[in-house]
Amino acid sequence: MPLTLDTLNEASAADAVALLDGIYEHSPWVAEAALRQRPFRTLAQLKYALAQAVATAPQERQLALLRAHPELAGKAMVQRTLTPTSTGEQQTAGLTACTPEEFERLQTLNAQYNTRFGWPFILAVRGPRGTGLNRAQIIASFERRLRNPPAVEFAECLRQVHRIAELRLNERFGYTPARGNLVWDWLERLARHSDPGYAERGELTVTYLTEAHRACAAEIAEHMRANGFDEVAIDAVGNVVGRYHPAGGATSARYLLTGSHYDTVRHAGKYDGRLGIFVPMACVRELAAAGRRLPFGIELVAFAEEEGQRFKATFLGSGALVGDFRPEWLEQRDADGVSLRAAMLQAGLDPSAIPALRRDPRHYLGFVEVHIEQGPVLHTLNLPLGVVRSINGSVRFEGAFIGVAAHAGTTPMDQRHDAAVAAAELVLAVQARARADGDSVGTVGRLEVPNGSVNVIPGRCRFTLDLRAPTDPQRDALIADVLGSLADISARHGVEHTLEETMRAAAAPSDPAWQARWEAAVAALGLPVHRMPSGAGHDAMKLHQILPQAMLFVRGENGGISHNPLESTTSDDMELAVAAFEHLLNQLAGDPDVQT
Amino acid sequence: MPLTLDTLNEASAADAVALLDGIYEHSPWVAEAALRQRPFRTLAQLKYALAQAVATAPQERQLALLRAHPELAGKAMVQRTLTPTSTGEQQTAGLTACTPEEFERLQTLNAQYNTRFGWPFILAVRGPRGTGLNRAQIIASFERRLRNPPAVEFAECLRQVHRIAELRLNERFGYTPARGNLVWDWLERLARHSDPGYAERGELTVTYLTEAHRACAAEIAEHMRANGFDEVAIDAVGNVVGRYHPAGGATSARYLLTGSHYDTVRHAGKYDGRLGIFVPMACVRELAAAGRRLPFGIELVAFAEEEGQRFKATFLGSGALVGDFRPEWLEQRDADGVSLRAAMLQAGLDPSAIPALRRDPRHYLGFVEVHIEQGPVLHTLNLPLGVVRSINGSVRFEGAFIGVAAHAGTTPMDQRHDAAVAAAELVLAVQARARADGDSVGTVGRLEVPNGSVNVIPGRCRFTLDLRAPTDPQRDALIADVLGSLADISARHGVEHTLEETMRAAAAPSDPAWQARWEAAVAALGLPVHRMPSGAGHDAMKLHQILPQAMLFVRGENGGISHNPLESTTSDDMELAVAAFEHLLNQLAGDPDVQT
Repeated sequence: MPLTLDTLNEASAADAVALLDGIYEHSPWVAEAALRQRPFRTLAQLKYALAQAVATAPQERQLALLRAHPELAGKAMVQRTLTPTSTGEQQTAGLTACTPEEFERLQTLNAQYNTRFGWPFILAVRGPRGTGLNRAQIIASFERRLRNPPAVEFAECLRQVHRIAELRLNERFGYTPARGNLVWDWLERLARHSDPGYAERGELTVTYLTEAHRACAAEIAEHMRANGFDEVAIDAVGNVVGRYHPAGGATSARYLLTGSHYDTVRHAGKYDGRLGIFVPMACVRELAAAGRRLPFGIELVAFAEEEGQRFKATFLGSGALVGDFRPEWLEQRDADGVSLRAAMLQAGLDPSAIPALRRDPRHYLGFVEVHIEQGPVLHTLNLPLGVVRSINGSVRFEGAFIGVAAHAGTTPMDQRHDAAVAAAELVLAVQARARADGDSVGTVGRLEVPNGSVNVIPGRCRFTLDLRAPTDPQRDALIADVLGSLADISARHGVEHTLEETMRAAAAPSDPAWQARWEAAVAALGLPVHRMPSGAGHDAMKLHQILPQAMLFVRGENGGISHNPLESTTSDDMELAVAAFEHLLNQLAGDPDVQT
Repeated sequence: MPLTLDTLNEASAADAVALLDGIYEHSPWVAEAALRQRPFRTLAQLKYALAQAVATAPQERQLALLRAHPELAGKAMVQRTLTPTSTGEQQTAGLTACTPEEFERLQTLNAQYNTRFGWPFILAVRGPRGTGLNRAQIIASFERRLRNPPAVEFAECLRQVHRIAELRLNERFGYTPARGNLVWDWLERLARHSDPGYAERGELTVTYLTEAHRACAAEIAEHMRANGFDEVAIDAVGNVVGRYHPAGGATSARYLLTGSHYDTVRHAGKYDGRLGIFVPMACVRELAAAGRRLPFGIELVAFAEEEGQRFKATFLGSGALVGDFRPEWLEQRDADGVSLRAAMLQAGLDPSAIPALRRDPRHYLGFVEVHIEQGPVLHTLNLPLGVVRSINGSVRFEGAFIGVAAHAGTTPMDQRHDAAVAAAELVLAVQARARADGDSVGTVGRLEVPNGSVNVIPGRCRFTLDLRAPTDPQRDALIADVLGSLADISARHGVEHTLEETMRAAAAPSDPAWQARWEAAVAALGLPVHRMPSGAGHDAMKLHQILPQAMLFVRGENGGISHNPLESTTSDDMELAVAAFEHLLNQLAGDPDVQT
């Protein structure tokens, strides 16, 4: 009999701890602490409470929790002295059937890992889909994480502990994230299409209008048709557009516009962009299956291009919807010399029809976009979902300090004009100033003393600046202060500097009403509402020009890494994103303002 | 009638100012302030007092002094409205005979310079030898200095003002730095020899045992013979050794050992090393001319190799005198594959005779070395000479911080492991720690985020460390604190680091008695005694192993730049070095301890 939340909520304290026995390996204190938060409305709420019990514990306790875990394919497993749960999990991953070489490799890794970190390697071997990683994936993950700084790896292990607990809880509660699994599987299937040069190595790269790109469009259109969309088409810029009609028929009411992009960066993850296509797809699928119509339509757009990988122009897909397509872009050429125009014609697209793609905002309620976070924030907070309050405005600069190169031995400290010291002060000034805002970010990504020598005081130091903030005034104040520091540093060190602005983009703050809908949806799941800026740009930035917009972020695994094959989330988190989207639809359906 | 110090010392305040009228262009306040220091014992003392009057004046006054100067080849000169002195000086430099192109170029430079700095370009056109720069040299200097940071150029202009004043004072006092001019001319003559590839471009490069190198040795030997040395020979390592016998004959007493190296770096200055050969030469010349013998002998060694340019080994010349020549070095090969052994044999040297070059310290009083400073300290202090209190001990490291590369937009400031931020903190920690000692130096000469991107948080940052201090314990404390900072920074940022020591050299503190002799010599010239560490290594470091040693530094022009064709000093400063060396000889001659 699966456990229920009612049973857990109503049990005595001791019984409740017993009901959660083994969820956290040999550490009943975790359940004890979490259960003080009873009653729980949702399983997500319970999972969060358990994770927070660990997060707020002293570090020695966290370390003890890590050390309570068995080694992967370690002696304990071989000797069958693990808990039955651990054994089962390791069996699922095939760790009981290692080749002698794999077993040997795992023992070496275990030893290296323990020496380096002082606790055993912990990995949720059932993986993000819950169906088990294979041995090669496990060994690759082990090798990669062995190189992490200890603080990073400590946090990663705690996250793995929570993921193991999540899978054990799902089992104990007889819960399956069915819609999350469906979205996962759709994403896996879509990721089979990849550009030449990457496909062969099992890597994902889908750039604008390649064969793989067009196969993706076709597959998405097929999904739309199969899942109940009333109209499905590929537009003049390659966007796949599906419309699910409102209760009164195709043109009887306004539409909710949603979607994200299906192109990828090179050597990409499977979730960036695409998650925002399949989460709404799963919702429409349920509506259609139930024969349910809403008092508004749903227009899901899978944007053809956002990443600017093949041609220099970016946001071609969402840009077309706001009239932001410049005819001169058609002359841009890819690395093989193929023009954008030629690529479009070859793909059967009609560039002259692009201007007509511009949407009339009067026909739409607004734009929402679901996206993987591409950062570590939700991962660190143990939260599966976050609400975006703004897409950051940003600016980039390239610059250099020019001091006086001199002999490192003979030039006293107070007679130097050291370009690297000036740059170091700038790096720390950027750091301190961005940190002071709390939600601004500032980065010196390139830093170099050209042709530096160990015994020569740097006469030149090149640097870049990347500054971002949730609003344009906040970004501009950040820029002003950083440039003030730059001038001050130059004057103080008697050095010169150059500075060139190479990029500037406006912030796109979320529309308060739409942001509030996402917040209500997250709260309904029993989860704390975390409002956050988006540091990266998204299609919603473009739609922002004509429609109110707000985004929902989904936690990324592996420290939130993105634009990388390690980019991931879990089917559990995807399930919660589907539930949040469904909640938003229901809010709109019940909102009298929307029905006009 | 030339002015005398007696006249100046005895004149009324107003008369004294009048006697120095025009020495500082339209700025009688300089003389007024300096004359408060009367009486002056030496011209050098007066020059220093004048320079200090400017150095201690408020910056607006210094700026007014610069602005009181006419433009080079400017309208004022063309219209003959300059002071006769300025006109004469500019005529000497041929500026009244510019070609139209040169005149045009100078007007453009004047305009650019004034726009950039806000005062006219100032250059002592009579140059470091007092005989006048040519127009090409003036234009090159102008173009180069136009690129200086304003603070650096401001200081350079003040130095030029003092040099102009020095030349005007020499004229007014009927003074000629005759021995300094002689040393200057010897150095110019020696600099005609240069290695192939450099000679053609008028550049100086003399590496070990090249044809130019052997021509230098022959020329130095010729100078020794011509100037009264009793024995002159080229030894087995290529050193040119001249001995001036003591009063009682060749072996009647101990010898003072002195000298420096005649090899150069590539693209070198003319003074590094060689100045320390010709200053003692000028003294022996005078002794011999007067038929004067001292109660000790003088052994002047022109060391064949110090810079380690052709072969990896360094200090071959002075090393041989302390038994520091390793037979395995003979197998080292130059860029053309020629072994050190082959090069020596081809030059007629006998490597097997090198061990016999080792000096028996019982036969020597000690070692003194005169050297151009190769740094900005004396230049900044307006002092022609400085006394070295130690050759710094040093250490070098190469290292890297390894953090976590991540998205610059999506990673909050408090969740970063930024390798460049860690490196920036290290740069500033090195700076602050070295500065705290006053006379230590610490430099991060190489600094680089490999493959950095504007929008990626640096996951790696490479750096070098060069740390030097006057004593080994002070150096070791500096190292310990910097390494402590490194560990602390790594821990604080959750990053890893690597660090490899690549070089370590012991300090060579000056022998107190010998340092005191240099101090007495400098004081006798009416100059303040400035004691300073040597940041660079010198032959004295090697002799330190067997003899008490102390060095005298001579001010470098152009901010003290060295290992560069811009390296320079003046014949006035060389004259003072000769006088100081002479004073040291006389001290020794009168010292009863020396006569044994």
